[in-house]
Amino acid sequence: MSKLTLKAAVALIDGALAEAARQKCRPLTVSVLDDGGHVKAVHRQDGSEFLRPRIAEAKAAGALGMGRSTRKMGEQAMQHLPFFAGLVGASDGRIFATAGGVAFTDSVGEVLGAVGVSGDTSDRDEACAFAGIAAAGFKVAPDS
Amino acid sequence: MSKLTLKAAVALIDGALAEAARQKCRPLTVSVLDDGGHVKAVHRQDGSEFLRPRIAEAKAAGALGMGRSTRKMGEQAMQHLPFFAGLVGASDGRIFATAGGVAFTDSVGEVLGAVGVSGDTSDRDEACAFAGIAAAGFKVAPDS
Amino acid sequence: MSKLTLKAAVALIDGALAEAARQKCRPLTVSVLDDGGHVKAVHRQDGSEFLRPRIAEAKAAGALGMGRSTRKMGEQAMQHLPFFAGLVGASDGRIFATAGGVAFTDSVGEVLGAVGVSGDTSDRDEACAFAGIAAAGFKVAPDS
Amino acid sequence: MSKLTLKAAVALIDGALAEAARQKCRPLTVSVLDDGGHVKAVHRQDGSEFLRPRIAEAKAAGALGMGRSTRKMGEQAMQHLPFFAGLVGASDGRIFATAGGVAFTDSVGEVLGAVGVSGDTSDRDEACAFAGIAAAGFKVAPDS
Repeated sequence: MSKLTLKAAVALIDGALAEAARQKCRPLTVSVLDDGGHVKAVHRQDGSEFLRPRIAEAKAAGALGMGRSTRKMGEQAMQHLPFFAGLVGASDGRIFATAGGVAFTDSVGEVLGAVGVSGDTSDRDEACAFAGIAAAGFKVAPDS
Repeated sequence: MSKLTLKAAVALIDGALAEAARQKCRPLTVSVLDDGGHVKAVHRQDGSEFLRPRIAEAKAAGALGMGRSTRKMGEQAMQHLPFFAGLVGASDGRIFATAGGVAFTDSVGEVLGAVGVSGDTSDRDEACAFAGIAAAGFKVAPDS
Repeated sequence: MSKLTLKAAVALIDGALAEAARQKCRPLTVSVLDDGGHVKAVHRQDGSEFLRPRIAEAKAAGALGMGRSTRKMGEQAMQHLPFFAGLVGASDGRIFATAGGVAFTDSVGEVLGAVGVSGDTSDRDEACAFAGIAAAGFKVAPDS
Repeated sequence: MSKLTLKAAVALIDGALAEAARQKCRPLTVSVLDDGGHVKAVHRQDGSEFLRPRIAEAKAAGALGMGRSTRKMGEQAMQHLPFFAGLVGASDGRIFATAGGVAFTDSVGEVLGAVGVSGDTSDRDEACAFAGIAAAGFKVAPDS
């Protein structure tokens, strides 16, 4: 059974959205997946567009499935466009090479899951992801 | 813009899971969609299997997409298996002819969205859906 | 990181195929997935039809995703046809309600993954799955 | 019936992973498909991310489906991005225009299948593919 609890996932979302309020972000969607890439909790704020849950989930799933943040993937993607075009297909669209998808670990470094945030600029999306991970007491997973 | 707020969607989920606690249900997943069939909020309880979010979403989407509760669809399905088999394909798997998917309206009867619950028997799943709808101050939408 | 090693997954496959040889089974495909439902190892014997890898994977993924053996699902499916028709769609075809998909645990009961076997009768497929799980030193996971 | 045996496919994988050990590669996934593009054997090393089986299979399937190595496709892709974007969709994600997907033949030049390797740089992925093909006694298929 996944070690990520619903309570922790909701705390992570609440922490991300509290940071969004501080930064006066556009309406966001935050998706939290367990370590196998399956949905644990999703919240879509009022005004957040209806594709946002798909984007947020794809960011989180991509970070898990490739073992690195979607920010790092985005930097790599511009140098390796065919690789990332292929990855979109091979993952059935569950990858998004734009900052805002971040895997997280417990205190001893075991990956528990990932969060994806979508709705504002990718930099601000990612800042909210980091804030949520900290609020839940987790750590950002290192890139592979 | 959808009239369903995130605050109301989370209140609906909390109400459904409070009923589940009273009934000592197995771990549940509850998915709330807006009137366009797009995810507003999802919570998967600890121990709820990883296919449950897909099932819960399919129940809610099916209730919206066919304009009737998935309980009514389930009764019809046994008499019309080929119709429902076709529906599974035509909806890309976003239909589920088993009780637990219920659309809801505001006080004047406008459909705001639907909830899908999965994890226990379909009767108990649906009882939790009804409890959540009441807790959020909404009404069960009539079947078409 | 998944706790299921490649070495153990291959030992499981070898154990399953050794049992198949003893029982003179038809050519089999054996798929082993980690606890998140992702492929760890697959072997398709000579003469095993080309859809078998999809079936074997769907058996294993279904056992994980619903938390019960595909034998138990098969018994339930005949009583709840609409539920299982819906499940095929909601899982994108990654479910198979026929014996031969079995989740397994380590010695303390933590689920490590699942095996799916396809090619002979479902009873013999499942017997090979059990033999493989034992050969790898794992235990059959209890049904939820 | 496919002429590629499971024994040869596993020998190919073992040869590829032996080369990976010599080169101290990152954890790899190796997928071997028959000439119809169907899975014969897959091994995912410990630590290889969960999207790797999809990538490895897409590399092998693409090499077969277009009759040329994925290295050659990658060279072409930079000049013909819309073609390769279309190919991702038309193949349902079973193409990958990055080195590491190689078809192979028997001693008289008949195509028996293809191997896809993913996990390290595409150059090293491909070197492991070549090593595996040689270890199994096969030859690299010429590009069309």
